[in-house]
Amino acid sequence: MNVLVVGGAGFIGSHLCDALLEAGDRVVCVDNFSLGTRKNIEHLKNHTAFKLYEADATDKKKMSEIFREENVEQVFHLAANSDIQASAEDPEVEYRNTYTTTFRVLACMREYHVRKLFFASTSAVYGNKGDELLDENTPNLNPVSYYGAAKLGSEALISAFSYMNDIDALVLRFPNVIGPRLTHGVVFDFIHKLEHDNRNLNILGNGKQRKPYIYVTDLVDAIMKFRAPRESGVTLYNVGVEGATSVTVIADIVCEEMGLKDVVYHYTGGEGGWKGDVPRFRYCVDKIHGAGWKANYTSDEAVRETVRRNINR
Amino acid sequence: MNVLVVGGAGFIGSHLCDALLEAGDRVVCVDNFSLGTRKNIEHLKNHTAFKLYEADATDKKKMSEIFREENVEQVFHLAANSDIQASAEDPEVEYRNTYTTTFRVLACMREYHVRKLFFASTSAVYGNKGDELLDENTPNLNPVSYYGAAKLGSEALISAFSYMNDIDALVLRFPNVIGPRLTHGVVFDFIHKLEHDNRNLNILGNGKQRKPYIYVTDLVDAIMKFRAPRESGVTLYNVGVEGATSVTVIADIVCEEMGLKDVVYHYTGGEGGWKGDVPRFRYCVDKIHGAGWKANYTSDEAVRETVRRNINR
Repeated sequence: MNVLVVGGAGFIGSHLCDALLEAGDRVVCVDNFSLGTRKNIEHLKNHTAFKLYEADATDKKKMSEIFREENVEQVFHLAANSDIQASAEDPEVEYRNTYTTTFRVLACMREYHVRKLFFASTSAVYGNKGDELLDENTPNLNPVSYYGAAKLGSEALISAFSYMNDIDALVLRFPNVIGPRLTHGVVFDFIHKLEHDNRNLNILGNGKQRKPYIYVTDLVDAIMKFRAPRESGVTLYNVGVEGATSVTVIADIVCEEMGLKDVVYHYTGGEGGWKGDVPRFRYCVDKIHGAGWKANYTSDEAVRETVRRNINR
Repeated sequence: MNVLVVGGAGFIGSHLCDALLEAGDRVVCVDNFSLGTRKNIEHLKNHTAFKLYEADATDKKKMSEIFREENVEQVFHLAANSDIQASAEDPEVEYRNTYTTTFRVLACMREYHVRKLFFASTSAVYGNKGDELLDENTPNLNPVSYYGAAKLGSEALISAFSYMNDIDALVLRFPNVIGPRLTHGVVFDFIHKLEHDNRNLNILGNGKQRKPYIYVTDLVDAIMKFRAPRESGVTLYNVGVEGATSVTVIADIVCEEMGLKDVVYHYTGGEGGWKGDVPRFRYCVDKIHGAGWKANYTSDEAVRETVRRNINR
């Protein structure tokens, strides 16, 4: 199938390109290299079924050209600003890179009659609900980050475009995703901080922030399994793992895997890492388990494997 | 108080300007006159506490200037494309006039530390839920119109901006709003059609579409009552009336008030008026009733009063 991966040179997008090519699809990748990198797709550049456009997914004219040219049958939309901490300082980034990319992709699908979509959503749409178990029917979604707001707005767009244009869409709400090619986040930060100073580690918050981490190949496996939704309209799943990992445990795992002992942890204190951070959440993944998918790695295992793959590169 | 009414020359916005001036506020009105008209605010142009900017609320530079200049203390954001039927043909209109206006208003509030907001939301955020009674805790909001999607996305933005910048916001979800200065919709259409041909009336759908209609002065009364939310963060109410009015009953009332007898109704058939229309919905208004507000007009009375005020103008 001719597929378009928007954000295909990003951390998750590039792993998805790998899987799609492996499955025999012809992959057209669009990326503006804001967070995505050429290195992530270096190994694909001579693949006969892979084609790259360096383009911004908010560019109406360019995106329209790509759709017209490439006879796209399914779109995988992963373009977004995924660095919540960064956009807290500049909400324009989310307006442009997260919301407007979605609008543009959907407007092109409408124009060129493309009827299949995968969309990368997020647990951040739920907002900060403390210890409440979050499932797909949880009401009162009140995002606390501009990122969560732009993703929830994107889901709303998908709902309307799906209804108005008979688009079948798979929407997966991701928790924290980690693995090779990671570009930011706590696991990434700890490794880099300890590479600079292997005796002290500054930790944002009190270290008790606790979230589920999914390994990127598990996530891609879920996307591939459900890419052809069984139902028409929008099919929505939380995708995740059993368990969760606290920030202090992440620090412990990073130190262990880097062979460091007696590192002193310095906590900045407070419940969350930064304003807009959701310090902990509990994710219900019963629906996707019921549909026959389960992650291979637990949250702790995902962290450990990520550290192994991101050190000594 | 210095207040900014974005969309202040519109159908609802202009009635709100009247009420704010009456209450002693200094009103700065921003409108691009896309749906708003000069006629709606003609009577205010010499009012010493009223100031008009002809500007587009998506214009970053201009909006920033207005905020810098006017020492705004509260924003009433009503700018939007309110004509759902029109935007079904062109979703860009909702992206620009409904979503982007909200983003720009919020970004300016963030920049200029304005901490009070009123936002005009809509029953369209719920999507098409048949006979389910819709209250503020209803889960799975799946808008079927681009308008509903852009408004739900706007609510998500307000959630994040409120949290990140300590903005207190009142969000009212309106049903169909009617009254003097109406610019479109079924009541408006029927009057105009019957002014052209007083013997036949073409009716979209089967006439059984049935929705609650609120009279514009009732709505403005609710905005004024709750404009200073008691709670911090976002306060959300469905605002509405008891009962609902079917399209055929609207036709009957219009004919009666225009003194027309034996008009032949021609139905196009089908459940909804057009794709993206929600043919009927049931609105729970217990929460706002519990807070001490109730509409003066029933849905049928609102329709009748609107017809009286819109014929023989």
